[in-house]
Amino acid sequence: MVRAFFSGNMKQKIDFGKLADKFGTPLYVYDVNGMTDKIRAYKDNFKSDRFATKVLYASKAFSCDAMIRLVKEEGLCLDVVSGGELHVAERVGFDMSKVYFHGNNKSRAELEYALRLGVGTVIVDNFGELTLLEKLAKESGKKVKALFRLNIGVDAHTHKYISTTLFESKFGMMPASEEFRNCVALARQSGNVEFDGLHCHIGSQVFDTAAYKLAAEKMAAVLKQFTRPLTLNMGGGFGVRYTADDTPAATPALCRDMVSYVENALDNAGVKIKELLIEPGRSIAGEAGSTVYTVGFVKHIPTKTFYFVDGGMTDNIRPALYQAKYDCDVVGKESAEKTVKVTVAGKCCESGDLLIEDIMLPEAESGDRLVVYTTGAYGYSMSSNYNKACVPAVVFVKDGMARQVVRRQTYADLAACDTEDSGYEVL
Amino acid sequence: MVRAFFSGNMKQKIDFGKLADKFGTPLYVYDVNGMTDKIRAYKDNFKSDRFATKVLYASKAFSCDAMIRLVKEEGLCLDVVSGGELHVAERVGFDMSKVYFHGNNKSRAELEYALRLGVGTVIVDNFGELTLLEKLAKESGKKVKALFRLNIGVDAHTHKYISTTLFESKFGMMPASEEFRNCVALARQSGNVEFDGLHCHIGSQVFDTAAYKLAAEKMAAVLKQFTRPLTLNMGGGFGVRYTADDTPAATPALCRDMVSYVENALDNAGVKIKELLIEPGRSIAGEAGSTVYTVGFVKHIPTKTFYFVDGGMTDNIRPALYQAKYDCDVVGKESAEKTVKVTVAGKCCESGDLLIEDIMLPEAESGDRLVVYTTGAYGYSMSSNYNKACVPAVVFVKDGMARQVVRRQTYADLAACDTEDSGYEVL
Repeated sequence: MVRAFFSGNMKQKIDFGKLADKFGTPLYVYDVNGMTDKIRAYKDNFKSDRFATKVLYASKAFSCDAMIRLVKEEGLCLDVVSGGELHVAERVGFDMSKVYFHGNNKSRAELEYALRLGVGTVIVDNFGELTLLEKLAKESGKKVKALFRLNIGVDAHTHKYISTTLFESKFGMMPASEEFRNCVALARQSGNVEFDGLHCHIGSQVFDTAAYKLAAEKMAAVLKQFTRPLTLNMGGGFGVRYTADDTPAATPALCRDMVSYVENALDNAGVKIKELLIEPGRSIAGEAGSTVYTVGFVKHIPTKTFYFVDGGMTDNIRPALYQAKYDCDVVGKESAEKTVKVTVAGKCCESGDLLIEDIMLPEAESGDRLVVYTTGAYGYSMSSNYNKACVPAVVFVKDGMARQVVRRQTYADLAACDTEDSGYEVL
Repeated sequence: MVRAFFSGNMKQKIDFGKLADKFGTPLYVYDVNGMTDKIRAYKDNFKSDRFATKVLYASKAFSCDAMIRLVKEEGLCLDVVSGGELHVAERVGFDMSKVYFHGNNKSRAELEYALRLGVGTVIVDNFGELTLLEKLAKESGKKVKALFRLNIGVDAHTHKYISTTLFESKFGMMPASEEFRNCVALARQSGNVEFDGLHCHIGSQVFDTAAYKLAAEKMAAVLKQFTRPLTLNMGGGFGVRYTADDTPAATPALCRDMVSYVENALDNAGVKIKELLIEPGRSIAGEAGSTVYTVGFVKHIPTKTFYFVDGGMTDNIRPALYQAKYDCDVVGKESAEKTVKVTVAGKCCESGDLLIEDIMLPEAESGDRLVVYTTGAYGYSMSSNYNKACVPAVVFVKDGMARQVVRRQTYADLAACDTEDSGYEVL
């Protein structure tokens, strides 16, 4: 059961023990230098001399005011998926022309909000949405660009991908569908919604970049029907390293591969585009984030030992939801011999609240700190108040210095929406 | 693919359309009459003339101030699993002697809080916890009762149960373990923690009551070693009806079965107890709760139709997390012919955000309301702000009248913990 061990990927030495002492646990800790390096690796390498390129940060991976401010300062564009994410962009003063609004079921209120803010581009999922967007844009006299999301039958996750003519995703339109043709026709006659290009997204935590090659070929074939050079958005899904078993491409190689896949596919199809976009989220925030816990009770049963920590599925639902694997260290014992087969279990009253099963760790005792690596994406963003747990604080660490960017919830916060008893009223 | 249909279990006619108009969607709606009936069915039927009985509401299924106030008014005891749930009990003025504090990894702060409030009983998971509780109780001069949680090797879920000598749960102690003997020995010599009995919990959404018979026999065998009559807590896990495929026992039958299983097991072992407890949560709140959505866009692909709704895995993660099944109706079209094979999909930017797959429904259009039944347990309580979604409002309906008990979150609520930028500080 002993396996190769991944002990994080920090760009600086982070003293997780000191951070835990100062800010309490559980605690989300972000290596800002790591995120900045990653963002710059995208900006420096995602380039072509044939078309413009843009990198969009996918906020759903990890969004808070400080994070979106960082994205703004680094000059990336922003991918948002809801009114709530738009609101973060508004709060931090993000240039709205650089915001791309995603989602399969945007509400009327969300589309109105986006138009009011002057969001640059809406990624349109379906004809119903385009009809509504066009109507609202016309009524309000606003102009907006639209990319149409396509379902091209490529589904890639981790090491494999499948290619099919009927991928039953809720997202996007099939290139040969009447729905897509109707979208193009509607946008052509609209004075408010400008058809600007196409979008696809083939999956999450993708390691096999060949899947993007196939996707680029399929997208080039669709682009061929349009004479004007359009924008091509290849989506995201770039994998990160959760454990030593994960083998994501390095960012520079991934960027160069993506650009060359697209250039070649366009050449072969005889098509030109004006702009190529990608949407990394996890790959910017994932490895830079860690979660620090305090070990509470240690329990031995004949076949294993449990280290109980003071968080769990409420701050990281990925192990329970996706059977996601993580690595961890006992803080201060990183170099100690790993002699105990441990299940790191959370404190939720739920038998499935196990963060890491069967990992070799050093002996630990109550009060020790445990750090789980690569929790930066879809940890905080998917956190819940299940069991009335408070969402942990978020700390940014930069050049060895720290600041709290999200404070820990209090019990009073959990009751903020419990309304005074106003009595029953007849409907 | 057509299957028998479960159209809810309301004790009163609820006008979901009117509620949606008044309070917006998504909306959690609770049939208070249904919950009250259920609570009374437990109180009236969970009785024995051989020992006292108590019914504890398991708050983790659904907790908010109004719900715990209802539980208080109906005279049940309360099972809490965290400081946050204790805080709700404190806020509504719950009689703390009737509160039972659960959890595998209670923190020092939580145990201190429980002692300060005068919580009646702590369900002790392990020896480390008992050692800490005893120390804190002694230091503060408080007295508290303790039930010891046992892992008896019965694991029941839905229609099957397994029985094993080594059930690798994170919860409880094995009856033959040194850890359990140490707990008994420590409590015997404590002047502050009184060993009051034993607890077990065999699973969730249990349909096969025979699993409780086996559990009662195993618990009786353990109780035999104690001369003094103790408390026996048989836990919860009583199933509810999500779809027509689910066949839970009726509450009166379940209560009578549970009491007679325990009476017989005690007789056969020649043991007496003073008190028998059970902990229903889901079975009180589950069927009484429904979630009302508004249909946004309707999307057709060759093999199916998607009805996109304005919520999803953020307000009900059970389909994604447990592959849980639900039934639903299009409001106002409950009697219409179900002619369309539909996947009800949420609005999250995640391909797995599908609430109900392949259900036959009537034709629906944008603006229609859709009501999903039996969402009362582990819906609101497990909700998240993923995609910066706002947690929906909660409305109680009683005798045909309604009141909002939890208001809908706003975008501003989502930013409540984003702290002002105070700059980086050296640690």
